[in-house]
Amino acid sequence: MLDAVHLNVIARATPSRLGSQHRRDEEAARVGLLDRIEHPRDLRSMPDADLETLAAEIRDRLVSTCAPNGGHLGPNLGVVELTIATHRVFDSPRDPIVFDTGHQAYVHKMLTGRHGDFGRLKQAGGLSGYPSRAESEHDWVENSHASTALSYADGMAKAFAVRGERDRTVVAFIGDGALTGGMAWEALNNIAGGPQTGPDRRPLVIVVNDNGRSYSPTVGGLARHLDGLRTDPRYEQALDVVKRALGRTALVGQPLYDALHGAKKGLKDLLAPQGLFEDLGLKYIGPVDGHDRAAVEQALTQAKKFRGPVLVHCLTQKGYGYDPALRDEADQMHSPGAFDPATGAPAGSSVRSWTDVFSDALVRAGRERPDVVAITAAMLGPTGLEPFARAFPDRCFDVGIAEQHAATSAAGMAMMGLHPVVAVYATFLNRAFDQVLMDCALHRAGVTFVLDRAGVTGNDGPSHNGMWDLSILQVVPGLRLAVPRDGAQLTEQFAEALDVGDAPTVVRFPKGAVGPDIAALERIGGVDVLARSQSNDVLLVAVGALAGVGVDTAKRLGAQGVGVTVVDPRWVKPVDDALVTLARQHRIVVTLEDNGRVGGVGTVLAQVLRDAGVTVAFHGYGLPQRFLEHAKRDQILAEAGLTAQILAREVSGLVAALDNGASPHDRTTV
Amino acid sequence: MLDAVHLNVIARATPSRLGSQHRRDEEAARVGLLDRIEHPRDLRSMPDADLETLAAEIRDRLVSTCAPNGGHLGPNLGVVELTIATHRVFDSPRDPIVFDTGHQAYVHKMLTGRHGDFGRLKQAGGLSGYPSRAESEHDWVENSHASTALSYADGMAKAFAVRGERDRTVVAFIGDGALTGGMAWEALNNIAGGPQTGPDRRPLVIVVNDNGRSYSPTVGGLARHLDGLRTDPRYEQALDVVKRALGRTALVGQPLYDALHGAKKGLKDLLAPQGLFEDLGLKYIGPVDGHDRAAVEQALTQAKKFRGPVLVHCLTQKGYGYDPALRDEADQMHSPGAFDPATGAPAGSSVRSWTDVFSDALVRAGRERPDVVAITAAMLGPTGLEPFARAFPDRCFDVGIAEQHAATSAAGMAMMGLHPVVAVYATFLNRAFDQVLMDCALHRAGVTFVLDRAGVTGNDGPSHNGMWDLSILQVVPGLRLAVPRDGAQLTEQFAEALDVGDAPTVVRFPKGAVGPDIAALERIGGVDVLARSQSNDVLLVAVGALAGVGVDTAKRLGAQGVGVTVVDPRWVKPVDDALVTLARQHRIVVTLEDNGRVGGVGTVLAQVLRDAGVTVAFHGYGLPQRFLEHAKRDQILAEAGLTAQILAREVSGLVAALDNGASPHDRTTV
Repeated sequence: MLDAVHLNVIARATPSRLGSQHRRDEEAARVGLLDRIEHPRDLRSMPDADLETLAAEIRDRLVSTCAPNGGHLGPNLGVVELTIATHRVFDSPRDPIVFDTGHQAYVHKMLTGRHGDFGRLKQAGGLSGYPSRAESEHDWVENSHASTALSYADGMAKAFAVRGERDRTVVAFIGDGALTGGMAWEALNNIAGGPQTGPDRRPLVIVVNDNGRSYSPTVGGLARHLDGLRTDPRYEQALDVVKRALGRTALVGQPLYDALHGAKKGLKDLLAPQGLFEDLGLKYIGPVDGHDRAAVEQALTQAKKFRGPVLVHCLTQKGYGYDPALRDEADQMHSPGAFDPATGAPAGSSVRSWTDVFSDALVRAGRERPDVVAITAAMLGPTGLEPFARAFPDRCFDVGIAEQHAATSAAGMAMMGLHPVVAVYATFLNRAFDQVLMDCALHRAGVTFVLDRAGVTGNDGPSHNGMWDLSILQVVPGLRLAVPRDGAQLTEQFAEALDVGDAPTVVRFPKGAVGPDIAALERIGGVDVLARSQSNDVLLVAVGALAGVGVDTAKRLGAQGVGVTVVDPRWVKPVDDALVTLARQHRIVVTLEDNGRVGGVGTVLAQVLRDAGVTVAFHGYGLPQRFLEHAKRDQILAEAGLTAQILAREVSGLVAALDNGASPHDRTTV
Repeated sequence: MLDAVHLNVIARATPSRLGSQHRRDEEAARVGLLDRIEHPRDLRSMPDADLETLAAEIRDRLVSTCAPNGGHLGPNLGVVELTIATHRVFDSPRDPIVFDTGHQAYVHKMLTGRHGDFGRLKQAGGLSGYPSRAESEHDWVENSHASTALSYADGMAKAFAVRGERDRTVVAFIGDGALTGGMAWEALNNIAGGPQTGPDRRPLVIVVNDNGRSYSPTVGGLARHLDGLRTDPRYEQALDVVKRALGRTALVGQPLYDALHGAKKGLKDLLAPQGLFEDLGLKYIGPVDGHDRAAVEQALTQAKKFRGPVLVHCLTQKGYGYDPALRDEADQMHSPGAFDPATGAPAGSSVRSWTDVFSDALVRAGRERPDVVAITAAMLGPTGLEPFARAFPDRCFDVGIAEQHAATSAAGMAMMGLHPVVAVYATFLNRAFDQVLMDCALHRAGVTFVLDRAGVTGNDGPSHNGMWDLSILQVVPGLRLAVPRDGAQLTEQFAEALDVGDAPTVVRFPKGAVGPDIAALERIGGVDVLARSQSNDVLLVAVGALAGVGVDTAKRLGAQGVGVTVVDPRWVKPVDDALVTLARQHRIVVTLEDNGRVGGVGTVLAQVLRDAGVTVAFHGYGLPQRFLEHAKRDQILAEAGLTAQILAREVSGLVAALDNGASPHDRTTV
């Protein structure tokens, strides 16, 4: 067993060799221990040696399952012991365990009766890559947006108090990265503000999984503070004093706990680095070696016994126990695609992505314009900002998992003459809706938001799909919204966005490979005409990445004698006058977008046409307004009817109905 | 001059007597010093005695201006000396001063060339009640949503660094209440995470205006921590030591600063309570007596000289210098309506408000159902939760200015069997959009959001109007949305909302007096029919508080021979089948809502009708999709065309156009 204070060095210096062939052969010879775990309670009777083997088995399973299809490998390798210990100490689901962000719940899934299904992780009909209430009573929260766990937990603990269920303990798992999000602060303030002594205190254990990183290393004053906990020589010295005084086994046991929390202020001040949490009034235990299962169990048992809010600070290493992950300096295999399990090398060839196109365009803009700066919310790599950060280190800001601050600090920069580019995933912009509206738009701040992973992302489940932005951004006065159809348009429209200095602009594009460019026949106003026919039956307004589907749909309809004009509006907000004019020249307008139908591009265009007195028939196609279960992107789009085949059939039906004098409609419900 | 440490007691025990007749007569005899201030620089040459007189003059002006029409009196009385000091030390607008929330900027307005216009505060065409960039180059931020100032300031400071304007200092004014908001944490983490030493640090002075309250007393661990700074006997002792060692004038001057920040750890630890900010790595000065102008100036000068981020902690008292405010225990006259300046007593009779109706209904629900709990984001009084809190103190939670936490902790409570009621202003729900969507709706949590001050609030300006909720909430799958038309419906629909256990519900209503109940002729499905005529020309769907306008419009149209059916949909989401059936039976459907037109009730109903194949003519009336300048509610509604007179003329035109075979349209643009 390691001393907690030495973990930092040791864990990083001597990773185990699980990825190697030797260990694998050894494992294969054994009967699987995982097969014996049908309920977390089965862990409690397991001898220590078996628990260690189990941890190795779980790591093997993590690597072998993620290798063919990808997954959140690094985070889960880091929480194996933490999760085993948590399930041994607490009584799930009676004691609810809430995972912040949820991508570190694979081990939890294996230990709660789902190891048999683990091979079909993230596949349609298989296990979700996040906790899922449909899968298990042990799963409570399935939202992948960060920094929520402490708020849920505070609510649960309050509910137990109101209901008199005082024997239940809420456990919240949260990473150091997620603590940089404002919600976590609001929750800490509330948890610490509740009763800390006496019978009214609410049992709530916060397990801080501190690996020094979110996607990339955690930033800000908090990270510096946590880092201080690990490396401050004063702290190590102090701990030595305590150890000598209280004995070897006292490191994370009762006496140290008492020393930290019950003893005189003098000793507390000697161990000052944990001040941040204690200043708020929150009990603190740690730091604990998060890969030392027994030590974690001791700390958690202690925390549980307190019957009030306690923060247990565990130091872990992302990718622990798997050499290729530990060697990956960029992100410790946070969420790789398919890879070779022996080497960790990515499988298959890499294709040029939408992100790559943006990334290049940003660097070019940075060279041409000294006022262009970039902001990311803890996702420098995934959003394509890394090359810009390397080229212009003083003009790139990682604000932590803090979309609100990203938007409002960008407004502040714009007020002082810069043009900030805020690069986030589309779904995470929801966190900053108020800031986009009030701080950017009301103040006419020239900030460009670049929304990656817009539309259907697929196998990461409902909370990752970026299907809300085209609706909620419609209400923001003055905001301009671009949806490029291909790489060339992304480059062009991003440049146009940077030229807008008196209003926020948004450029949104999907996940994955960017297809070949789709040439326009002509540009009318700001609208690109992508296909034309002899007769003007249908104006098909194809938004963004669905332009290709639109062109294919037109081809199929043309073969049936239906004349279709396909246009890409390019900027969907404000609505271009040319689009209104084009609509007048057709019998029916059909819109196509990979956003929820309600309030999206189609809905607003219909309103603009009504206001302009254009009484053309109209139908809007888009995603159904519900939470979409995980599956491959193509599967989801097909299920939503957004393929050329289905659309051609549908639109052909609408035209036939017009021919028959009936009204156009379909069976899609809101 | 007071010692900072004694301020707390003294300020509360011996308020000055400015409200009294004696002082008034004395003031009246003098020439107005305020008239000499055309630019903040004029303050710098003023002798100390004059500055004191000026402060008194400003307080008189605050009271006399707020008395007839109301206003944010308490907060502004509390920052008179703070604002004067700030303008003497910093060079606005070159040094930008950002006010968090902005309702404490009256004094700033008077000192930046606007004292002459101050009498028309909050009136149409007069001064805004918040900073306004249209009014002055000294105003930078006009959003009234809390906790944003530090983010703007961080952005501005970064911009100055990028642009090489290192001689400019950003000043952010923020209250202790606003520090409980998550955004403030995100900003602090970033400000503290930036360079704290060397030439790269960014000059940014955070003035914490700590009066121990937001609307009501500030809650949570942070409040307890700040309170500790004021009352910890260890702190007073320590300060005595420092004072003896460094001399009397050193209290907030260089030596103490050095002692606090440059000296040995031992002394720092003795002064441990400021740990929270210093643990993050942020320089801290304080606490300073915020009513001792000279002391504040010394501290700010020191902070300015540091040329990096510094937090200056100032203790102030809301309502300082005006007896009636100090005697008002509820909220120290935070934002009274019209009042008698001599006594502070409210002028005019109080009328029953929408808030009162909700407040009563909540208490009744609390009595009937032990699972009903209530949550407020620092607005116990204004949202009507106080009676519930008194009746059920263990079931009412004030989470601070933390809408995100309010929503997600409510989801946690709902998961564990409670039915939480989250009461917030409609405009502030924008802060929790992501949490409503992902934490409540995705998890099918039975949480009821009660949105007060929905629609047009009027004289508090664009960021207070609750004109966004009916649009953005439309996209939330499963959410049910009620817009009661009167007190009886509010009571009834609130009860219906509490019966929904598997989805979030929302009940929204406007600010102010609730009118008489409007009886329904009949209920079809869930839709109330409010008026009928012989012929079915127009189906007028009147939403919520505009039901009365709808009925009046119908009367006017009836007099012109146009037959109108007026219905109140009651629940606008999901759309009731009965509404679709009714639409089929009319020639034109007209909707009426006090929400932005884009994406609102009308837009979505039009989509549902299209999807159902109902090709009836349609027009939606609502608020124009832009930021509405401050004015009285009725003025704004009239300007938006939402009066019976204007609507009758408009709708009559639409019907005439139908009679002539033309398409219905108007000139309203999006």
